[in-house]
Amino acid sequence: MSIVTILSDDQLSPEAAAVFADIRAVRNTDFVNNFWRALAHDPALLQRTWESIKVVMAPGALDPRTKELIYVAVSIANGCEYCIRSHTAAARAKGVSEAEIMELVAVVGMASETNRMVTALQVPVDEAFRSPPEPR
Amino acid sequence: MSIVTILSDDQLSPEAAAVFADIRAVRNTDFVNNFWRALAHDPALLQRTWESIKVVMAPGALDPRTKELIYVAVSIANGCEYCIRSHTAAARAKGVSEAEIMELVAVVGMASETNRMVTALQVPVDEAFRSPPEPR
Amino acid sequence: MSIVTILSDDQLSPEAAAVFADIRAVRNTDFVNNFWRALAHDPALLQRTWESIKVVMAPGALDPRTKELIYVAVSIANGCEYCIRSHTAAARAKGVSEAEIMELVAVVGMASETNRMVTALQVPVDEAFRSPPEPR
Amino acid sequence: MSIVTILSDDQLSPEAAAVFADIRAVRNTDFVNNFWRALAHDPALLQRTWESIKVVMAPGALDPRTKELIYVAVSIANGCEYCIRSHTAAARAKGVSEAEIMELVAVVGMASETNRMVTALQVPVDEAFRSPPEPR
Amino acid sequence: MSIVTILSDDQLSPEAAAVFADIRAVRNTDFVNNFWRALAHDPALLQRTWESIKVVMAPGALDPRTKELIYVAVSIANGCEYCIRSHTAAARAKGVSEAEIMELVAVVGMASETNRMVTALQVPVDEAFRSPPEPR
Amino acid sequence: MSIVTILSDDQLSPEAAAVFADIRAVRNTDFVNNFWRALAHDPALLQRTWESIKVVMAPGALDPRTKELIYVAVSIANGCEYCIRSHTAAARAKGVSEAEIMELVAVVGMASETNRMVTALQVPVDEAFRSPPEPR
Repeated sequence: MSIVTILSDDQLSPEAAAVFADIRAVRNTDFVNNFWRALAHDPALLQRTWESIKVVMAPGALDPRTKELIYVAVSIANGCEYCIRSHTAAARAKGVSEAEIMELVAVVGMASETNRMVTALQVPVDEAFRSPPEPR
Repeated sequence: MSIVTILSDDQLSPEAAAVFADIRAVRNTDFVNNFWRALAHDPALLQRTWESIKVVMAPGALDPRTKELIYVAVSIANGCEYCIRSHTAAARAKGVSEAEIMELVAVVGMASETNRMVTALQVPVDEAFRSPPEPR
Repeated sequence: MSIVTILSDDQLSPEAAAVFADIRAVRNTDFVNNFWRALAHDPALLQRTWESIKVVMAPGALDPRTKELIYVAVSIANGCEYCIRSHTAAARAKGVSEAEIMELVAVVGMASETNRMVTALQVPVDEAFRSPPEPR
Repeated sequence: MSIVTILSDDQLSPEAAAVFADIRAVRNTDFVNNFWRALAHDPALLQRTWESIKVVMAPGALDPRTKELIYVAVSIANGCEYCIRSHTAAARAKGVSEAEIMELVAVVGMASETNRMVTALQVPVDEAFRSPPEPR
Repeated sequence: MSIVTILSDDQLSPEAAAVFADIRAVRNTDFVNNFWRALAHDPALLQRTWESIKVVMAPGALDPRTKELIYVAVSIANGCEYCIRSHTAAARAKGVSEAEIMELVAVVGMASETNRMVTALQVPVDEAFRSPPEPR
Repeated sequence: MSIVTILSDDQLSPEAAAVFADIRAVRNTDFVNNFWRALAHDPALLQRTWESIKVVMAPGALDPRTKELIYVAVSIANGCEYCIRSHTAAARAKGVSEAEIMELVAVVGMASETNRMVTALQVPVDEAFRSPPEPR
């Protein structure tokens, strides 16, 4: 049903198998979801994407829970069902509550409404919003 | 330059002026940005939008800083320059650091990349991501 | 400033000049806006686009005013400033009032809000919404 | 299958049940579609959304049929299947004919085509499209 | 399950049947896919769309394989499952390899990531990117 | 005017300066465009993005010209002016002609039109488009 087949573990190239081993080690579970099994047709793309996700979603200035909420919000705006479902599941696994999910939905809805109203009216940017802070 | 004129304070209807007074009181500043000045052509729409924003962005299960980051992320995905600038300014005013903004940019970028790759490959949703939690 | 130059009348190929003559005749004005002047670099594309617009926007089951409002709404959702401005001007020329424009903005905003909330929650389609009417 | 469960009538909080009663009274039908049943997990969000929809879609400068067509057009551009199906059903219930639906499809398609061509070519806005009418 | 019924050959108007005959002749196959069967409810729209597709996708400055890849890329960005599947099938029929498809996915993903990062940061256009070449 | 300042060479951290040196070496020019100067606020993000771009846009199963056209097409669909301008300039530098650019515009427009028509009509996927090729 997908554009490429979803590869099972015994269909992986050695390079793809090595990435799967790292996914399992980092996430501490045997489960590897279909996204990686589709990407495995191109082991270099698989590896690059996994390495990037690991870095981007790691704790930093923002905590992993906040990053997951942002990921879900973007996936909603981009209309990606798979991404909404998988990252909502990830958010719940990180302790995000049902009340927080409903508030996320409200903020995403509100932002989308005002985004379109601003675009519709072509509101000019206020001077107060123009200058970035000076670099340190 | 906008689709409707940006109304100054002395061009407001009494209904719109009342909403502006509430904006000023709630935000504790005399500054009212152009979005509200464009919406003021339709006082009922102005009032409804302002009442919704107050409720949605108030502290709740999610804190206002996190809500502001989600708002910015959605505005980026929807491509609304005004909204990106005004809500980034709001996020900074709430203490969001430059490092946090750069991480937000990285998460939004990464989510958009994987959103499109998932859509491109039409990856089927894993069973593990399908069931919502039972209502309490 | 555009990706290709905006052609003046004396830079047109004979094929493009013929399309411009038809635009002027149909619209009963000498003014030809920049969209057609950019497309004129590819006279076949210019002609095909103009012929399609003439047919699609002509009175039919829907009247031209309603079609223009739909055109503006789609342009807002697609984030095209030029299209919003040019088709709002066209709508005004067809008698659309400022009150109607503000209501259009409200509907587009509301639809965008609920579109995203539905997508966020992955609401399943009700059976009642599934069947198209039988063909006659 | 949705992100939250679809609540049946006997799972509603009193606040949500009161909104459902108003939906049934205003629409003069016992049927309450899944969108409201998903939103009912957050009664305040449910109520606010329903109150807004009632106001925005009521007869005003634009008639309800035209508003429904605009709603469908935006839902297509935003890629929301549920919204396309539910609001097309609503449009048919308000008397929109199959010929009108096919013309809507043609206008949405044409607008999307020219939106992207304009964006592709970065066509500069003509001076004639720049100025809003003066406020009264 | 679609918004209008999918018409079988014996439900076509004479005008629609004539377009189907041309589709079969040009493509050298008896198979006519569902897109055309849905559009056939509006024979004029069916004909206009088919005539445009024939012209746009014909060999020109760009070869049909490259055009098909661009078509798939746009369909991904616009989130149209049907279009992704049908045009990926068309690309494969024109000899596009699985390795090329995976590279397409990588480019679409990368472009989407940087598109959003640029939008997020509101990067100003470099002077070097501003001027179109002079018309000949 | 951007969300963060555009860094000049003497404002770079040593890590960012090293990436700039590689950009200059690989591209064989002293010119480093604003995108990289904005990203340089986060040297790790700058490096990861540059390393990915180098790999993704390198000659592979698809040639760099075709990749650049796909990049432009996606940037149009995502509505990113900066990206359209910079990658059109890159495409021209790789020998893409003005006739090819106009054909790209036509394909992107046509794809966007049919994408929306398919979405509007909720056309079901033909069985013939469902199965991916077996993995080798």
